[in-house]
Amino acid sequence: MKVEPEAVVREFWRLIATNDFGSVKSVLAAEFVMEWPQSGERIRGADNFARMNGEYPTQGAWQFTVNRLVAQGSFVVTQVSVSDGTLAAEAISFFTVERGEITKLVEYWPEPFEAQANRRHLVELME
Amino acid sequence: MKVEPEAVVREFWRLIATNDFGSVKSVLAAEFVMEWPQSGERIRGADNFARMNGEYPTQGAWQFTVNRLVAQGSFVVTQVSVSDGTLAAEAISFFTVERGEITKLVEYWPEPFEAQANRRHLVELME
Repeated sequence: MKVEPEAVVREFWRLIATNDFGSVKSVLAAEFVMEWPQSGERIRGADNFARMNGEYPTQGAWQFTVNRLVAQGSFVVTQVSVSDGTLAAEAISFFTVERGEITKLVEYWPEPFEAQANRRHLVELME
Repeated sequence: MKVEPEAVVREFWRLIATNDFGSVKSVLAAEFVMEWPQSGERIRGADNFARMNGEYPTQGAWQFTVNRLVAQGSFVVTQVSVSDGTLAAEAISFFTVERGEITKLVEYWPEPFEAQANRRHLVELME
Protein backbone atom coordinates (compact mmCIF):
# COMPACT_ATOMS: atom_id res chain seq x y z
CA MET A 1 0.00 0.00 0.00
CA LYS A 2 1.39 3.35 -1.01
CA VAL A 3 1.37 5.85 1.81
CA GLU A 4 0.89 9.34 0.46
CA PRO A 5 3.70 11.83 1.18
CA GLU A 6 1.22 14.16 2.91
CA ALA A 7 0.19 11.36 5.30
CA VAL A 8 3.84 10.55 6.05
CA VAL A 9 4.54 14.18 6.95
CA ARG A 10 1.43 14.45 9.13
CA GLU A 11 2.63 11.31 10.93
CA PHE A 12 6.08 12.91 11.35
CA TRP A 13 4.52 15.88 13.16
CA ARG A 14 2.20 13.63 15.20
CA LEU A 15 5.19 11.58 16.38
CA ILE A 16 7.34 14.66 17.09
CA ALA A 17 4.50 15.98 19.25
CA THR A 18 4.69 12.90 21.49
CA ASN A 19 8.12 14.26 22.55
CA ASP A 20 9.33 10.65 22.22
CA PHE A 21 11.77 11.63 19.51
CA GLY A 22 12.97 8.08 18.91
CA SER A 23 9.49 7.26 17.62
CA VAL A 24 10.02 9.63 14.70
CA LYS A 25 12.57 7.25 13.22
CA SER A 26 9.68 5.11 11.94
CA VAL A 27 8.99 7.65 9.17
CA LEU A 28 12.62 8.51 8.35
CA ALA A 29 14.59 6.70 5.63
CA ALA A 30 17.95 5.13 6.41
CA GLU A 31 19.62 7.83 4.33
CA PHE A 32 17.67 10.67 6.00
CA VAL A 33 19.41 14.05 5.90
CA MET A 34 18.24 17.32 7.44
CA GLU A 35 19.67 20.71 6.53
CA TRP A 36 19.31 24.11 8.19
CA PRO A 37 20.48 26.49 5.45
CA GLN A 38 20.52 29.48 7.82
CA SER A 39 23.35 28.02 9.93
CA GLY A 40 24.85 25.64 7.39
CA GLU A 41 24.18 22.69 9.72
CA ARG A 42 23.46 19.24 8.30
CA ILE A 43 22.35 16.20 10.30
CA ARG A 44 22.76 12.76 8.77
CA GLY A 45 20.71 9.79 9.88
CA ALA A 46 17.61 9.19 11.97
CA ASP A 47 19.61 8.48 15.14
CA ASN A 48 21.39 11.83 15.09
CA PHE A 49 18.11 13.60 14.32
CA ALA A 50 16.38 11.93 17.29
CA ARG A 51 19.32 12.72 19.60
CA MET A 52 19.45 16.35 18.51
CA ASN A 53 15.77 16.78 19.33
CA GLY A 54 16.10 14.94 22.64
CA GLU A 55 19.11 17.01 23.74
CA TYR A 56 17.63 20.38 22.71
CA PRO A 57 17.27 22.60 25.82
CA THR A 58 13.60 22.90 26.82
CA GLN A 59 11.38 24.33 29.55
CA GLY A 60 8.66 21.73 29.04
CA ALA A 61 7.03 19.45 26.49
CA TRP A 62 7.19 20.74 22.93
CA GLN A 63 3.90 21.44 21.21
CA PHE A 64 3.50 21.71 17.45
CA THR A 65 0.73 23.29 15.39
CA VAL A 66 0.67 22.59 11.66
CA ASN A 67 -0.68 25.88 10.24
CA ARG A 68 -0.11 25.15 6.56
CA LEU A 69 0.65 22.08 4.48
CA VAL A 70 1.16 22.04 0.71
CA ALA A 71 1.96 18.74 -1.06
CA GLN A 72 2.88 17.97 -4.66
CA GLY A 73 4.34 14.66 -5.78
CA SER A 74 7.24 13.73 -3.49
CA PHE A 75 7.41 17.21 -1.97
CA VAL A 76 5.57 18.48 1.11
CA VAL A 77 5.95 21.89 2.74
CA THR A 78 4.68 22.69 6.21
CA GLN A 79 4.58 25.85 8.28
CA VAL A 80 4.47 24.91 11.94
CA SER A 81 4.35 26.82 15.22
CA VAL A 82 6.56 25.30 17.93
CA SER A 83 6.49 26.06 21.63
CA ASP A 84 7.59 24.56 24.95
CA GLY A 85 5.38 27.00 26.86
CA THR A 86 8.23 29.51 27.22
CA LEU A 87 9.96 29.67 23.86
CA ALA A 88 7.93 30.08 20.68
CA ALA A 89 9.24 29.68 17.15
CA GLU A 90 8.04 29.16 13.59
CA ALA A 91 9.43 26.45 11.32
CA ILE A 92 9.05 26.10 7.56
CA SER A 93 9.98 22.58 6.49
CA PHE A 94 10.53 21.28 2.96
CA PHE A 95 10.20 17.47 3.02
CA THR A 96 11.11 14.96 0.32
CA VAL A 97 9.20 11.68 0.74
CA GLU A 98 10.18 8.56 -1.20
CA ARG A 99 8.69 5.07 -0.89
CA GLY A 100 6.72 6.15 2.18
CA GLU A 101 9.72 7.53 4.07
CA ILE A 102 11.20 10.99 4.56
CA THR A 103 14.57 11.10 2.82
CA LYS A 104 15.30 14.82 3.15
CA LEU A 105 14.22 17.80 5.21
CA VAL A 106 15.36 21.36 4.53
CA GLU A 107 14.13 23.56 7.35
CA TYR A 108 14.00 27.31 7.97
CA TRP A 109 13.43 29.16 11.25
CA PRO A 110 12.37 32.77 10.55
CA GLU A 111 12.77 35.14 13.50
CA PRO A 112 10.76 38.30 14.22
CA PHE A 113 12.06 41.56 12.75
CA GLU A 114 11.10 45.21 13.22
CA ALA A 115 8.55 46.86 10.96
CA GLN A 116 10.49 49.40 8.90
CA ALA A 117 9.79 53.15 9.14
CA ASN A 118 10.60 53.75 5.45
CA ARG A 119 7.55 51.75 4.32
CA ARG A 120 5.21 52.69 7.17
CA HIS A 121 3.09 54.84 4.78
CA LEU A 122 2.27 51.73 2.72
CA VAL A 123 1.49 49.15 5.40
CA GLU A 124 -0.78 48.46 8.31
CA LEU A 125 0.38 46.71 11.45
CA MET A 126 -1.32 43.43 12.37
CA GLU A 127 -2.31 42.61 15.93
CA MET B 1 -9.00 29.29 -20.20
CA LYS B 2 -8.01 28.40 -16.68
CA VAL B 3 -4.49 29.50 -15.78
CA GLU B 4 -2.93 27.10 -13.31
CA PRO B 5 -1.87 28.59 -9.95
CA GLU B 6 1.71 27.40 -10.51
CA ALA B 7 1.86 29.29 -13.83
CA VAL B 8 0.48 32.43 -12.18
CA VAL B 9 3.16 32.32 -9.51
CA ARG B 10 5.94 31.69 -12.04
CA GLU B 11 4.65 34.75 -13.94
CA PHE B 12 4.69 36.74 -10.68
CA TRP B 13 8.40 36.00 -10.22
CA ARG B 14 9.14 36.64 -13.91
CA LEU B 15 7.50 40.05 -13.69
CA ILE B 16 9.17 40.92 -10.38
CA ALA B 17 12.52 40.11 -12.00
CA THR B 18 11.94 42.78 -14.65
CA ASN B 19 12.25 45.30 -11.77
CA ASP B 20 9.24 47.04 -13.36
CA PHE B 21 7.19 46.46 -10.25
CA GLY B 22 4.02 48.00 -11.70
CA SER B 23 3.93 45.13 -14.18
CA VAL B 24 3.32 42.68 -11.33
CA LYS B 25 -0.16 44.12 -10.84
CA SER B 26 -1.32 42.06 -13.84
CA VAL B 27 -1.25 38.88 -11.71
CA LEU B 28 -2.59 40.40 -8.48
CA ALA B 29 -6.28 40.40 -7.58
CA ALA B 30 -8.05 43.65 -6.69
CA GLU B 31 -8.30 42.42 -3.10
CA PHE B 32 -4.61 41.36 -2.94
CA VAL B 33 -3.13 41.31 0.57
CA MET B 34 0.44 40.53 1.57
CA GLU B 35 1.52 39.72 5.12
CA TRP B 36 4.97 39.51 6.69
CA PRO B 37 4.26 37.62 9.95
CA GLN B 38 7.78 38.28 11.30
CA SER B 39 7.19 42.04 11.53
CA GLY B 40 3.39 42.08 11.67
CA GLU B 41 3.27 44.20 8.51
CA ARG B 42 0.35 43.89 6.08
CA ILE B 43 0.11 45.53 2.67
CA ARG B 44 -3.29 45.89 1.04
CA GLY B 45 -3.72 46.27 -2.70
CA ALA B 46 -1.58 45.88 -5.79
CA ASP B 47 -0.68 49.60 -5.91
CA ASN B 48 0.81 49.62 -2.42
CA PHE B 49 2.66 46.38 -3.13
CA ALA B 50 4.20 47.82 -6.33
CA ARG B 51 5.15 51.07 -4.55
CA MET B 52 6.74 49.21 -1.62
CA ASN B 53 8.93 47.23 -4.03
CA GLY B 54 9.82 50.31 -6.05
CA GLU B 55 10.75 52.34 -2.97
CA TYR B 56 12.83 49.58 -1.34
CA PRO B 57 16.47 50.75 -0.99
CA THR B 58 18.68 48.96 -3.53
CA GLN B 59 22.25 48.91 -4.85
CA GLY B 60 21.22 47.61 -8.27
CA ALA B 61 18.63 45.58 -10.14
CA TRP B 62 17.05 42.82 -8.06
CA GLN B 63 17.58 39.27 -9.27
CA PHE B 64 15.41 36.35 -8.21
CA THR B 65 16.11 32.62 -8.36
CA VAL B 66 13.18 30.26 -7.73
CA ASN B 67 14.88 27.34 -5.96
CA ARG B 68 11.73 25.43 -4.97
CA LEU B 69 8.09 25.51 -5.94
CA VAL B 70 5.36 23.28 -4.50
CA ALA B 71 1.76 23.67 -5.68
CA GLN B 72 -1.47 22.06 -4.51
CA GLY B 73 -4.91 23.34 -5.48
CA SER B 74 -5.07 27.09 -4.88
CA PHE B 75 -1.86 27.09 -2.85
CA VAL B 76 1.68 27.59 -4.13
CA VAL B 77 4.84 27.83 -2.02
CA THR B 78 8.14 29.12 -3.36
CA GLN B 79 11.60 29.43 -1.88
CA VAL B 80 13.47 32.16 -3.70
CA SER B 81 16.94 33.70 -3.47
CA VAL B 82 16.93 37.49 -3.87
CA SER B 83 19.92 39.73 -4.52
CA ASP B 84 20.73 43.20 -5.82
CA GLY B 85 24.41 42.26 -6.18
CA THR B 86 25.21 43.54 -2.68
CA LEU B 87 22.45 42.33 -0.41
CA ALA B 88 21.36 38.69 -0.51
CA ALA B 89 18.27 37.25 1.14
CA GLU B 90 16.01 34.21 1.08
CA ALA B 91 12.22 34.45 0.82
CA ILE B 92 9.65 31.75 1.46
CA SER B 93 6.30 32.78 0.00
CA PHE B 94 2.90 31.16 0.53
CA PHE B 95 0.59 32.24 -2.31
CA THR B 96 -3.17 31.81 -2.63
CA VAL B 97 -4.32 31.94 -6.26
CA GLU B 98 -7.99 32.26 -7.17
CA ARG B 99 -9.48 32.65 -10.66
CA GLY B 100 -5.99 33.10 -12.13
CA GLU B 101 -4.98 35.91 -9.76
CA ILE B 102 -2.97 36.07 -6.57
CA THR B 103 -5.29 37.04 -3.74
CA LYS B 104 -2.94 36.51 -0.80
CA LEU B 105 0.76 36.24 -0.10
CA VAL B 106 2.21 35.36 3.31
CA GLU B 107 5.96 35.75 3.17
CA TYR B 108 8.87 34.85 5.46
CA TRP B 109 12.47 36.12 5.34
CA PRO B 110 14.73 33.76 7.33
CA GLU B 111 18.10 35.26 8.33
CA PRO B 112 21.38 33.41 8.94
CA PHE B 113 22.03 32.17 12.49
CA GLU B 114 25.08 30.68 14.20
CA ALA B 115 25.61 26.92 14.31
CA GLN B 116 25.18 25.94 17.98
CA ALA B 117 28.02 24.43 19.98
CA ASN B 118 25.67 22.23 22.04
CA ARG B 119 24.75 20.14 19.00
CA ARG B 120 28.10 20.25 17.23
CA HIS B 121 28.71 16.54 18.01
CA LEU B 122 25.61 15.60 15.97
CA VAL B 123 26.00 17.79 12.89
CA GLU B 124 28.33 18.53 10.03
CA LEU B 125 28.86 22.02 8.64
CA MET B 126 27.93 22.63 5.02
CA GLU B 127 30.14 24.71 2.70
